[in-house]
Amino acid sequence: MQKPLILITNDDGIRAKGLRALIEIAKPIGRVLVVAPEEGHSGESHAITTQTPLRLRQLQEPDGGDEVIMYACNGTPVDCVKLGMTHLLDEQPDLVLSGINHGSNASINVVYSGTMAAAQEASLSGTPAIGFSLLDYSPDADFSSVQAIGGDLISKALKFGLGNEICLNVNVPALPLQEIKGVKFCRQANGTWEEGYDQRADPYGGKYFWLSGRYSNNEPDATDTDEWALSNGYVSVVPVQPDMTSYKELERLKREWQ
Amino acid sequence: MQKPLILITNDDGIRAKGLRALIEIAKPIGRVLVVAPEEGHSGESHAITTQTPLRLRQLQEPDGGDEVIMYACNGTPVDCVKLGMTHLLDEQPDLVLSGINHGSNASINVVYSGTMAAAQEASLSGTPAIGFSLLDYSPDADFSSVQAIGGDLISKALKFGLGNEICLNVNVPALPLQEIKGVKFCRQANGTWEEGYDQRADPYGGKYFWLSGRYSNNEPDATDTDEWALSNGYVSVVPVQPDMTSYKELERLKREWQ
Repeated sequence: MQKPLILITNDDGIRAKGLRALIEIAKPIGRVLVVAPEEGHSGESHAITTQTPLRLRQLQEPDGGDEVIMYACNGTPVDCVKLGMTHLLDEQPDLVLSGINHGSNASINVVYSGTMAAAQEASLSGTPAIGFSLLDYSPDADFSSVQAIGGDLISKALKFGLGNEICLNVNVPALPLQEIKGVKFCRQANGTWEEGYDQRADPYGGKYFWLSGRYSNNEPDATDTDEWALSNGYVSVVPVQPDMTSYKELERLKREWQ
Repeated sequence: MQKPLILITNDDGIRAKGLRALIEIAKPIGRVLVVAPEEGHSGESHAITTQTPLRLRQLQEPDGGDEVIMYACNGTPVDCVKLGMTHLLDEQPDLVLSGINHGSNASINVVYSGTMAAAQEASLSGTPAIGFSLLDYSPDADFSSVQAIGGDLISKALKFGLGNEICLNVNVPALPLQEIKGVKFCRQANGTWEEGYDQRADPYGGKYFWLSGRYSNNEPDATDTDEWALSNGYVSVVPVQPDMTSYKELERLKREWQ
């Protein structure tokens, strides 16, 4: 039997350490195709490129060795998944992996995340997908704990599958492996970014702004959320769906607005 | 009593006809601040700008007359909402409006939509928000039916409010007003883009790609979806929430994966 086909992408770009770490997890499990952005695309969410042409560049000396095929793309993480699945591959992949992201995608971060948008894009085409993130933003983060834990989740996704159009949002606390207590299946915490702008003046007197902010957990006492799991030494796994309908609000609108 | 404060943005850019149409709806209802992208940002979803500085440019002769204050921003629709709410305004707006988008944001399009991401961004800060879209992609689309219908929804949102972190995804069929049958509160239809890439060669022999695709409704027989409403002559109104957890899949994972 042929090994499963795994498509890998990320949002930190083809040169990111987290991408190389994810390739190392996937290589023993399957045949690997990588299509990742040329540059970093953090915070690009589900953006697609329609106004400029997309290009692919095959890497001649991929780090992963001969068995890994690697392409860089000038588009977004979602463009990478679309191009990989509809142009580069003749068959549907068995699994799409995204990451390992340098930084958290738990709670409301899922909405802004290019890593998770790429995973969701794959799930919309009926392919199980997992986005991995490590709660360490540094370019030189130590991904060894994710490498130790990720293989089991990947094997389970290949063995048991995922529900229709579901992908997994996996976040790993920035702890040494021996301090990680296990894996929690949980829901997305309700949290907000409390933001402001750092206002500056350029040398010509023009004003410009940098976004800055601080994440706040709106339900610090809830014990079934990804934020709780991560704060308490667990890996969080949240199943993510594309249906954004609020069914509770829908009932209220039908009652009160009609 | 002071008139309500309404912040308006869009994803088709400050010059789009749909933005001007939305300003016309809002002007009789409230005080209006517009912060819209300098250029079109369709398909940019919930992208935020963190790697380049943001700038604001106040329009000296806004189309809306003296009572409308207009800014163009070099960022995404979500950047516009963040800058408007945290930098330009001293008080929380009573309502944020986004659009009127040139083209549908029903069904899975909500995931890619900059229009709806802007509305959702406002709702995350506790401000009720509505994204309006007309099912006509032409730059010169006739927005008069949205103008006739939109005021009532805006008034209801101001009067009754919306649930915590909820925004509305309002889509209007491309029909003359007298052929529109009414407003349906509904859920997001399950649909997919069946996509391919148009591959071309540049004058130097380099390959490049354009995304192309066709939307497909995966549940054409369901009568409670936005796609059904729009195909049957109704305006669709879907309440959108930020929680993307699949609770059904979460129960299955806890049972089968743990």
